[in-house]
Amino acid sequence: MAIEIERKFLVCGEGWRDQVRHSSPMAQAYLNDAGRASVRVRIEAEQATLNIKQAVAGAQRLEFEYPIPLVDAQQLIAELGGGRIEKQRHRVPVGEQVWEIDEFFGDNAGLIVAEIELPSLQATFERPGWLGDEVTEDSRYYNHALAQHPYKDWAAS
Amino acid sequence: MAIEIERKFLVCGEGWRDQVRHSSPMAQAYLNDAGRASVRVRIEAEQATLNIKQAVAGAQRLEFEYPIPLVDAQQLIAELGGGRIEKQRHRVPVGEQVWEIDEFFGDNAGLIVAEIELPSLQATFERPGWLGDEVTEDSRYYNHALAQHPYKDWAAS
Repeated sequence: MAIEIERKFLVCGEGWRDQVRHSSPMAQAYLNDAGRASVRVRIEAEQATLNIKQAVAGAQRLEFEYPIPLVDAQQLIAELGGGRIEKQRHRVPVGEQVWEIDEFFGDNAGLIVAEIELPSLQATFERPGWLGDEVTEDSRYYNHALAQHPYKDWAAS
Repeated sequence: MAIEIERKFLVCGEGWRDQVRHSSPMAQAYLNDAGRASVRVRIEAEQATLNIKQAVAGAQRLEFEYPIPLVDAQQLIAELGGGRIEKQRHRVPVGEQVWEIDEFFGDNAGLIVAEIELPSLQATFERPGWLGDEVTEDSRYYNHALAQHPYKDWAAS
């Protein structure tokens, strides 16, 4: 269990690509549609996890994460998962911190967001030139929301 | 991961109580309301598990179960869990098999059901005298359903 403190931003331009230290593909799906928590199965490279995150908007949420066997995750995503999302996660070091930049595919193609995990709500961090507007409080950018109402449909709504 | 094959029956009378080998209290709650799978947190005695079960009626369902820390389970049930159920689970050996008899409390008080896990759909088993009607296919008896529409409300519907 942990309190996750995370801030999320849009990304401007391509300047971050030269600074990527590591990239890995992610496939994930949700085992539930709504409620007080999201239950997510994720495969990153060959590592699988089950993640439970409190469904509230904002920088601070309860989060629980457990490793599970890869074969379980594959079956869970294929047979019980909804709201599948595929993306590439790029890790970009900036000063003392590492940004996670998610580049979405499929129905969310074109969307790129940057996240930073912080030790406290008040923690300061260096803002790289490619950092755009903050969207931490905008629940449309939650992966759970993107699965149900993908980026390609945003213009229409 | 496993395919769970389980049959569920009502219980007649109190004849089973003399044969109980072990009883333990269970508290559980669900992290989701509906969908393709139920996601359950359970504490039995001091052991906590996270369980994912395919939401289909019948004897055979996909099931995944993982141990989690007790403190996580307590927090998940208290802060993110809905559909809480409390029951006593009695284990009753009959021949080569062990029946699990669940005696419900709270809004489901009065309901007692017996379950047996089987190696195959065709497997035979001894039917003790206290075994009542089979309810395997009746989704009202799912713990997930009992949490939302408890036994005390059945007469009214």
